[in-house]
Amino acid sequence: MNDAVRTEFDIDTGIGAVVLDRPAQRNPLSTNVMRQVTAALRKLSVDPAVRVVVISAAGPVFSAGHDLSEMIDRTLEDEREIFDVCTEMTDTVQQIPQPVIAAVQGPAIAAGCQLAASCDLVVASSAAVFGTPGVRIGLFCSTPMVALSRSIGRKRALQMLLTGETIDADTAADWGLVNLVVEPDQLDAQTRALAAKITGASPLTLQIGKQAFYRQIDLPQDQAYRAMAETMATNAVTCDAQEGMSAFLDKRTPEWRGK
Amino acid sequence: MNDAVRTEFDIDTGIGAVVLDRPAQRNPLSTNVMRQVTAALRKLSVDPAVRVVVISAAGPVFSAGHDLSEMIDRTLEDEREIFDVCTEMTDTVQQIPQPVIAAVQGPAIAAGCQLAASCDLVVASSAAVFGTPGVRIGLFCSTPMVALSRSIGRKRALQMLLTGETIDADTAADWGLVNLVVEPDQLDAQTRALAAKITGASPLTLQIGKQAFYRQIDLPQDQAYRAMAETMATNAVTCDAQEGMSAFLDKRTPEWRGK
Amino acid sequence: MNDAVRTEFDIDTGIGAVVLDRPAQRNPLSTNVMRQVTAALRKLSVDPAVRVVVISAAGPVFSAGHDLSEMIDRTLEDEREIFDVCTEMTDTVQQIPQPVIAAVQGPAIAAGCQLAASCDLVVASSAAVFGTPGVRIGLFCSTPMVALSRSIGRKRALQMLLTGETIDADTAADWGLVNLVVEPDQLDAQTRALAAKITGASPLTLQIGKQAFYRQIDLPQDQAYRAMAETMATNAVTCDAQEGMSAFLDKRTPEWRGK
Repeated sequence: MNDAVRTEFDIDTGIGAVVLDRPAQRNPLSTNVMRQVTAALRKLSVDPAVRVVVISAAGPVFSAGHDLSEMIDRTLEDEREIFDVCTEMTDTVQQIPQPVIAAVQGPAIAAGCQLAASCDLVVASSAAVFGTPGVRIGLFCSTPMVALSRSIGRKRALQMLLTGETIDADTAADWGLVNLVVEPDQLDAQTRALAAKITGASPLTLQIGKQAFYRQIDLPQDQAYRAMAETMATNAVTCDAQEGMSAFLDKRTPEWRGK
Repeated sequence: MNDAVRTEFDIDTGIGAVVLDRPAQRNPLSTNVMRQVTAALRKLSVDPAVRVVVISAAGPVFSAGHDLSEMIDRTLEDEREIFDVCTEMTDTVQQIPQPVIAAVQGPAIAAGCQLAASCDLVVASSAAVFGTPGVRIGLFCSTPMVALSRSIGRKRALQMLLTGETIDADTAADWGLVNLVVEPDQLDAQTRALAAKITGASPLTLQIGKQAFYRQIDLPQDQAYRAMAETMATNAVTCDAQEGMSAFLDKRTPEWRGK
Repeated sequence: MNDAVRTEFDIDTGIGAVVLDRPAQRNPLSTNVMRQVTAALRKLSVDPAVRVVVISAAGPVFSAGHDLSEMIDRTLEDEREIFDVCTEMTDTVQQIPQPVIAAVQGPAIAAGCQLAASCDLVVASSAAVFGTPGVRIGLFCSTPMVALSRSIGRKRALQMLLTGETIDADTAADWGLVNLVVEPDQLDAQTRALAAKITGASPLTLQIGKQAFYRQIDLPQDQAYRAMAETMATNAVTCDAQEGMSAFLDKRTPEWRGK
């Protein structure tokens, strides 16, 4: 059962890939699969050659969400374990130093929507749809709504959560959940093109910036400015910032040292 | 003076209605009216047959806002009472277990804009406009801006608040304040159609979800995930979630038991 | 070196102007310039005839951001001073009692983007672009992202921050960073027209409202309602609110007394 998630690494592009690979089952996020996703992210994250991580899925469906059969006739402790594992997966997406891009080729539903929405950036095929239909089966999509409501705002999130209806990729882009909508046969190429705009940056700078982003976003603004002023000051004295600024002024390409 | 707010309940649709009904006065939100709205919401909320609540208004204006004549030559204590009553009304909209939909047929101004913006979902006629013009009469729309700025973002909220200009329904939808804009003669039908997408859900699940939404939205993201993981675990062991998941897997219609 | 920032005041319009005026250097925000901006804002803010402040820039570029030459081969203490001065400038924009409008005629980059995004309202020429490209030179735009991510949301902010790509004025308006996009030759006139919608208001009311906006926006919603209920009650008993409400009911123009 360790074949539900594949990892790949392309040395030429610097892209590490995590691929949900149980297409016949619509890529369910069982506890086993979620643990594999977390492990895959951690494995890629410690490889300094991995500059960007892409999460994608095999088959027509990105992910239909949790494995419901795991949740029936279980104790509260069993259920808690499922959602703890789910939260750990989502946390890991945001905790690893590399930017994470979701490449969504089809329906991203419930926990599948949560996984996509938790990524730093989202590229969607025009065939993708996003939904949080748990309300219809008695289990409100309460963890998916954490990332969803922070991406698309209150009224739109409540509409999805209360009605259970899906939105298409263009609507998701209009609402701020998706960065880029592309033709289905362009999803891989356009995701790689987006990644290529990032992979030239200093990995240290990306790490500083990604961590800083999630630290400041939930602070009151005055505290956020103070925290970020300190972040920028310490960032500015790193070798990579000194090299980057000097190279810019000298009109040459910087050489990152990762410190 | 207890006729300013009507309540209705339609057993066939499960929709409870709160109707502002002083059209000749442009549905002012006097303290008396606001207390009636709060009482009406509470009355409907305890009826288990009420699945969704709709707030609408009679006449061409949704609500012109507070009754200014109440605010002139009053003590600070008097003014405090007015805004305490207003806050209690707004809190009640979000505290009752049922989803609340505003059906806005015309201008929703100042406290009228606040009431609409506080609802979980908003359907607007193309004849509706939204505004916070208090700045022009020396009384900044400070309580309306709580809901407004959380729905449409900082720059757009400040534009409305500082200039006092209204926005039309399409702009309100584009900015995320309104979920759906419809032709004026379709407002009732489309509001009922939206409600019908919700009334089939388990009332218990809707209650869990609505309460969870407002609890998580103001938490830092990591705390929100932890709170929602526990919410989902306890939701998952309810009878309605067990029934809903089983019915889904069995491809049959679930029967909610409300526990 | 005190000629990098000009201030102007037009008694007829009530508009105080802060103009970045080193166009040949692309209006760099050196510590000297940032201190001048802060001083200019404070000087204008204490003049009761100044009703609105406009921040604009001379030449084709609004501001290219910090002066990088100041940041190379400096101690951590030196860097901290730069970002403390920057934070003080941004805080001042939001702390002065008058509304502040940015009039952005060209590229607003890095700290230049931060300055524009920190203003209460933003008018942009169609020739303006906004960007946070620090990631490319090893110095992530961590302080610009405070205002940016609070204006345009998470996914879009991360896209700008991680790729370093600029967005045009129409995109900035669509995403909520800009209130109004105008033809380049209309920037001054349209900025003055927007200001004219505000300058007729009571300065006291504007001060109460602006301070209240930034105080409530970072509070949990229930605390925000309680804080704003008290703000409105104390606002309501001011002379200007009493005069404004009375004038409105009497259908006459109010006369503000500023108390």
